Amino acid sequence: MAELNGNLLVGQSGGPTAVINASVAGVLQEAGRHECIEEIYGGLNGILGILNEELIDINEEKAKSIEGLKYTPAAALGTCRYKIDFKKKPEKAAKDMDRLFEVFAAHNIRYFFYAGGNDSQDTSHKIHEEAVKRGYEMRVIGVPKTIDNDLPHTDSCPGYGSVVKYCAATVMEVGTDVGSMATDDGSCCIIEVMGRAAGWIAAGTIAAKRTPACPPHIILLPELPFNEEAFLARVKETVAANKYCIVVVGEGLKNAAGEEIGADKTRLDAFGHPVLSGAADKLAEIIQGKLNTKTRTVKLGYAQRAAAHFASATDAKNAVACGEAAVRAAVEGKSGYMVKIVRDTQAAGLVRWSTGLQPLGDIANVEHFIPRDWISEDGLLPNEKFTQYVLPLIEGEVKVPMENGLPKFVTLEKVRVEKKLAPRA
Amino acid sequence: MAELNGNLLVGQSGGPTAVINASVAGVLQEAGRHECIEEIYGGLNGILGILNEELIDINEEKAKSIEGLKYTPAAALGTCRYKIDFKKKPEKAAKDMDRLFEVFAAHNIRYFFYAGGNDSQDTSHKIHEEAVKRGYEMRVIGVPKTIDNDLPHTDSCPGYGSVVKYCAATVMEVGTDVGSMATDDGSCCIIEVMGRAAGWIAAGTIAAKRTPACPPHIILLPELPFNEEAFLARVKETVAANKYCIVVVGEGLKNAAGEEIGADKTRLDAFGHPVLSGAADKLAEIIQGKLNTKTRTVKLGYAQRAAAHFASATDAKNAVACGEAAVRAAVEGKSGYMVKIVRDTQAAGLVRWSTGLQPLGDIANVEHFIPRDWISEDGLLPNEKFTQYVLPLIEGEVKVPMENGLPKFVTLEKVRVEKKLAPRA
Repeated sequence: MAELNGNLLVGQSGGPTAVINASVAGVLQEAGRHECIEEIYGGLNGILGILNEELIDINEEKAKSIEGLKYTPAAALGTCRYKIDFKKKPEKAAKDMDRLFEVFAAHNIRYFFYAGGNDSQDTSHKIHEEAVKRGYEMRVIGVPKTIDNDLPHTDSCPGYGSVVKYCAATVMEVGTDVGSMATDDGSCCIIEVMGRAAGWIAAGTIAAKRTPACPPHIILLPELPFNEEAFLARVKETVAANKYCIVVVGEGLKNAAGEEIGADKTRLDAFGHPVLSGAADKLAEIIQGKLNTKTRTVKLGYAQRAAAHFASATDAKNAVACGEAAVRAAVEGKSGYMVKIVRDTQAAGLVRWSTGLQPLGDIANVEHFIPRDWISEDGLLPNEKFTQYVLPLIEGEVKVPMENGLPKFVTLEKVRVEKKLAPRA
Repeated sequence: MAELNGNLLVGQSGGPTAVINASVAGVLQEAGRHECIEEIYGGLNGILGILNEELIDINEEKAKSIEGLKYTPAAALGTCRYKIDFKKKPEKAAKDMDRLFEVFAAHNIRYFFYAGGNDSQDTSHKIHEEAVKRGYEMRVIGVPKTIDNDLPHTDSCPGYGSVVKYCAATVMEVGTDVGSMATDDGSCCIIEVMGRAAGWIAAGTIAAKRTPACPPHIILLPELPFNEEAFLARVKETVAANKYCIVVVGEGLKNAAGEEIGADKTRLDAFGHPVLSGAADKLAEIIQGKLNTKTRTVKLGYAQRAAAHFASATDAKNAVACGEAAVRAAVEGKSGYMVKIVRDTQAAGLVRWSTGLQPLGDIANVEHFIPRDWISEDGLLPNEKFTQYVLPLIEGEVKVPMENGLPKFVTLEKVRVEKKLAPRA
């Protein structure tokens, strides 16, 4: 494969994570090691900013800011939820694609990296195919990212280990708290975590369960229909045994009809919209109503995916490695792949991590769910197979510099690259 | 003052914190340094367990477990919300007091330490007065504890610095996340923190505001009646300027009529109870309804007061110091005091911490609110006076040992002391 000289463009897409910036740091630092890569640009707010020719010049950033991305949460380049949708909006999609290639050509972009989840890998795939079709020489590699951990073919997704580490620590801490207050009356606490379709995050909190009596006592997954009777029986049993019960629920928990239990269409707010009480509040209502057991809720929301102060060092290292591997693959001439994480479990459970490549066509729009045999038969807790899977992903802590008692994250200067095109029509 | 030989009893009361065990460690380790203190007992679940003669023998615990209490959240001895209420239930209170002194006498308790908030200091005060009245020689010292930070006469309350450190880091991280996703449509996130009467925790998150544009953008306190119009105007203004807005709200936010805004009496759940949507969900409903701006919520709940993985080293050190000072004061002959934290701000803002004593009669049932002149005139943000107050309290991080990627907290063996009395009537 002939050496390809030109500029690099990297973008971030979808919901941020604690380590998506670490992947970008991997891309940027690896790019600096290859002479064929000339200018290094970042796209502001992913595809959305690229369509508007809003690029920043990474070479204007301080090296220590780039290094600091390894412990800075959220998307330092900005992110977006913008889909180039050839199915639903073919004309707009075709127009977007034309515009993207105008921007690529205007700035001599020959290396394109996009960090994101399912939709973003689909975008990368389309851009790769389009480049081939147009005969525009450019290497496109997708970088995996999603706390949801639902990308196929990769052992895990950068972002997942960190969100699990934080949520599992929360379960452990809340469990200690509620347990220490528990008297004969009993009490429950429901912790709601993200995951609308896949329950990887909720299931991951099994890492906190160090003995059978330890929380979490019940984990409810969006994949399995909510069985109120079995749930209440287990809550009652747990409170009888331990005086308290900690439940973790994925926000997208559904009833047998496939409706989210947190969205109650029978109740309307002051503006006439259905009340979205959330899965945890709904479960609390059920427990208090049916068992008369005091129940409190915790809803971690965005806090969980941004919790860089307690990120997993393994996750952050894998995130950096994915960024680096993407650049190496592209420099070697590859295009149309996503970097994947590969686990090699050795003697004594020691895990060695490496990366591989998977064609983007295998990734785009495929969701990876928890294998059914990693969950107990009654569906109320993941089993030992899940614990073995998740523990290596939360190993180690990222060191974050502190200033006045709080994390000192970096922000980029974001020096704009001069626009060369007329504004987008 | 003559030396008093006898046994020590320590108990924990009220809602746990990340550092209430650190205070107990201070009591236990200091007690070991004084020969006049013979046996060292812990009361299980505070006064409640003591009434039932449920005591544990601390000398059966490993020294490293006691040391580990300095980084273990929640109440290692168990806690309770039990009030000896002479006003409302004088007969029951008198009976409880008789029983307590039976237990004290049966186990030759001559040193009694109780870590807790307002109600617990009141309990200690009553026990001290009762001991004097009965001529039972015992030294009673209250140890301050409450994330609510509403005890008077002390600079701050152990537990407060840690909850603020965690909540402020959350505001910073969530702000980074929401800011990186913000596009022209704008978005908001409401973070609900504890504080039903006093807004110290909500106000404390001002520590995260490192520049005027940084979050939190608005902090709503339970002390000031909610002004919907002024609030919405500020949200709109903030979104226009920054594309996003982070709001922190104390759970007890009230309207002008003094009703909590999170408790909506007009809506009933399936069991006929009013829907307690919570202050954050209510604010989100208002913003989405009136401004049509996408709004998400985070409700930290118990997670905030148990977050030992990110506790303040300053807070933990002060907590230990309070426990130690309580024992020293008692050994010196003092009784009927609460230990208080004293701040000495020196040149260059350097703070030196020490402890003092305040008569329990000055503490019991007095709530300490945020001075009005520490809050901006419009009531929407604390000012520089508050920032100067809070920053030293969150300085430093407690080192927590890790095991398999999660904190390794200690649990006590809890070897029971043989009962000497008939069960409580």
